[in-house]
Amino acid sequence: MAKWIAFPYLSVIVMSHITKLSSGHQLQSAHEVVNHELVIAGEPLSKRVQEAGGTPCYMYDMTRAQQQITAVREAFPKQFSVFYAVKANPNSQVLAALQPWVDGLDVASYGEVETAMNVGYKPQDMGFAGPAKSQGELNASLENGVFLSLESITEAKRICTWAEQHQKPIEVGIRINPSFELRASGMHMGGGAQVFGIDEETLFKVVETINQSAWVSVTGLHIYAGSQCLQMPALVEQFRETFLCFSRVCEQFELPIKRLNFGGGLGVPYFAGNVPIDLALLGHALHELCAEFKDFIQHKELIVELGRFLMADAGLYVSQVSDVKVSRKHTFVMTNGGMHHHLANSGNLGQLLKKNYPVVLGQKVDCPVEQKVTIAGPLCTPLDVLAKNIELPQVDIDDFVVIMLSGAYGLSSSPQQFLSHPSAKELVIPVI
Amino acid sequence: MAKWIAFPYLSVIVMSHITKLSSGHQLQSAHEVVNHELVIAGEPLSKRVQEAGGTPCYMYDMTRAQQQITAVREAFPKQFSVFYAVKANPNSQVLAALQPWVDGLDVASYGEVETAMNVGYKPQDMGFAGPAKSQGELNASLENGVFLSLESITEAKRICTWAEQHQKPIEVGIRINPSFELRASGMHMGGGAQVFGIDEETLFKVVETINQSAWVSVTGLHIYAGSQCLQMPALVEQFRETFLCFSRVCEQFELPIKRLNFGGGLGVPYFAGNVPIDLALLGHALHELCAEFKDFIQHKELIVELGRFLMADAGLYVSQVSDVKVSRKHTFVMTNGGMHHHLANSGNLGQLLKKNYPVVLGQKVDCPVEQKVTIAGPLCTPLDVLAKNIELPQVDIDDFVVIMLSGAYGLSSSPQQFLSHPSAKELVIPVI
Repeated sequence: MAKWIAFPYLSVIVMSHITKLSSGHQLQSAHEVVNHELVIAGEPLSKRVQEAGGTPCYMYDMTRAQQQITAVREAFPKQFSVFYAVKANPNSQVLAALQPWVDGLDVASYGEVETAMNVGYKPQDMGFAGPAKSQGELNASLENGVFLSLESITEAKRICTWAEQHQKPIEVGIRINPSFELRASGMHMGGGAQVFGIDEETLFKVVETINQSAWVSVTGLHIYAGSQCLQMPALVEQFRETFLCFSRVCEQFELPIKRLNFGGGLGVPYFAGNVPIDLALLGHALHELCAEFKDFIQHKELIVELGRFLMADAGLYVSQVSDVKVSRKHTFVMTNGGMHHHLANSGNLGQLLKKNYPVVLGQKVDCPVEQKVTIAGPLCTPLDVLAKNIELPQVDIDDFVVIMLSGAYGLSSSPQQFLSHPSAKELVIPVI
Repeated sequence: MAKWIAFPYLSVIVMSHITKLSSGHQLQSAHEVVNHELVIAGEPLSKRVQEAGGTPCYMYDMTRAQQQITAVREAFPKQFSVFYAVKANPNSQVLAALQPWVDGLDVASYGEVETAMNVGYKPQDMGFAGPAKSQGELNASLENGVFLSLESITEAKRICTWAEQHQKPIEVGIRINPSFELRASGMHMGGGAQVFGIDEETLFKVVETINQSAWVSVTGLHIYAGSQCLQMPALVEQFRETFLCFSRVCEQFELPIKRLNFGGGLGVPYFAGNVPIDLALLGHALHELCAEFKDFIQHKELIVELGRFLMADAGLYVSQVSDVKVSRKHTFVMTNGGMHHHLANSGNLGQLLKKNYPVVLGQKVDCPVEQKVTIAGPLCTPLDVLAKNIELPQVDIDDFVVIMLSGAYGLSSSPQQFLSHPSAKELVIPVI
């Protein structure tokens, strides 16, 4: 009844859920829609925009992130710890919200360590991988007890020197560049010649270096073979190959290994036609692998580190239409948000071709499609495209344009000062 | 003699100049090299790095920027005013240094207006173009007297409404999307369907709208057809087409035009094989065009707006080698600088393929080439590449890696927060 008093002008409240868009995008999980408007954690988008302080803004619905983590935990064997890869979204409120749900953090710079410590994470719960850690980063990590994945013989020597100088026992991990690669991944980060990790066939040199030290021991192994993979057979093969590689290395070197970090690589269905990962199926395969390698993994912590897969679906980037213009039969929807806030969506962060993320008009989500348009931002460059040749309902000035799956590699990965436009607000919506 | 006391350990001081690198890069102008070390405005690179506060850092040698502006002025007909496009490098010390040498600024956001006003530019000397100016940007520009290039019928209406409300006479420019495009340009921003400007064939609608206002008059025309063009015939054709388009429009609408903005588009030889623009030749062609259109341009200000062309050559991005590692026969030089400071150089700002900017080892500039390497930054992503398969002398830890032609679309165009690494320092070296 109260609802009808609050919205007396509405004759019908239509509630639906979207899991698939007319553009052919399949979302990771359903979004609620009331009276054509997207609902974010129980409140209409327009109200969330007010909370954020207006557009352009990012919103992170931490309930969705929690659900995703829960889904991973339920699917994966209990032996697996779930680490969050801070680089995906280092917003400190996001980090704080994630803390009760994750077992640790994958960090990629000492800056990330500091951000995480500031919101209450312990350095002992962080694993630091990065292909060129500075001497300062190594020193600070060793002092504070951050677990280092070393990625070169130089790093091994620097760590041994530090431990010797400080007469302090240090446990480290080795990041291996394996002989295999993650097929069908967005980015290869293992296999072939790589800046990442130490080639499996030259590991002996690093182990020799460390064995000469009375203070340093290798207690961890780490492989991160690639990212953004949506092909189940490729993912399962990656986990199998990683198990095999780890057991080979342990056998060869008799290392006192306590933790095995399997990396991540689980993809997100950004583009039309992409099918989300079937976690149950992946989990089933992992249970089988854990049974097969039962003796090997006994008394070892297995780690999966996920960033994009945990946060992408929780985030929306919301801008507003400032103009609609037609140029030579093509309709351009101009918004107040753009590539300076969302470089990945503009197609300029590793993609060869601009493909569209899932996009909806926030208050016309399920209205009938009427036209094909290009959505562009305010920057004076043709690179500033939010969506190309996309079918949308009638567009009006001030309409909300919502880019979905934007919770990872969004604002922090973007050239925010490019053309000196205002920065985007960030609204972190806690679990109620 | 003093020199020998200062450097007693040197048996020979070798001084040379580089204008061409072994990689096939031809620089815009010569760089001085003393005893294998790059000299920046009279001081060795290592000293400049100290001044900057260490690496990674950008250095802008304003003497080189001044020389470039002088070269443009000497080549171009006197009728041309030279505007600086702030978006290329909005560093406030750079803006302050440029002020005595330029006639005005091309700005692309109100943020740029504010930065420029803070260092003493007058709003009257700024022209504001941008495909989706916000209502707030329009209001502030109109209040302060920034000259607006309007780019849609919506903007025309908003300006007329403001002028009517404030009973204030307003002069504006129209940015035209011409029927031609700048061939061989890095980015097309005119011709075909565009977010930029108003299609030439629909100009009448905008002129009609403005003619209905007692307060607004069109006193400027503006075309920006494309950027980063190195082909002389294409550039000359662009200027000729722009002259023709302007005179067509003036004839058709009888507008009280005072200023004609020809845009820019002059390219910089970033890549091997690129030949720098021959300014004398371009200037000669422009003199001929000015003679041909003598009557038309009488009592009109002609404007050329240049950003990249004025600043690129003045800037260097300097990082330092933190590690050299070999992976499967490929040598990777790891540095403390990367794509978070220099997105364009990493190939992720509009390029389809990563091509190398000119790169030198700052203290081994003219040492013999010994190996082929890839230079990568510290980010945990395969996108963080500074130079791919490049021939360099022997590389050692702490060597300076210098990316040249980095004065434009550098730091401000980069995702500085990506992976939470320290930001780059900026050293602006004034003219002595």
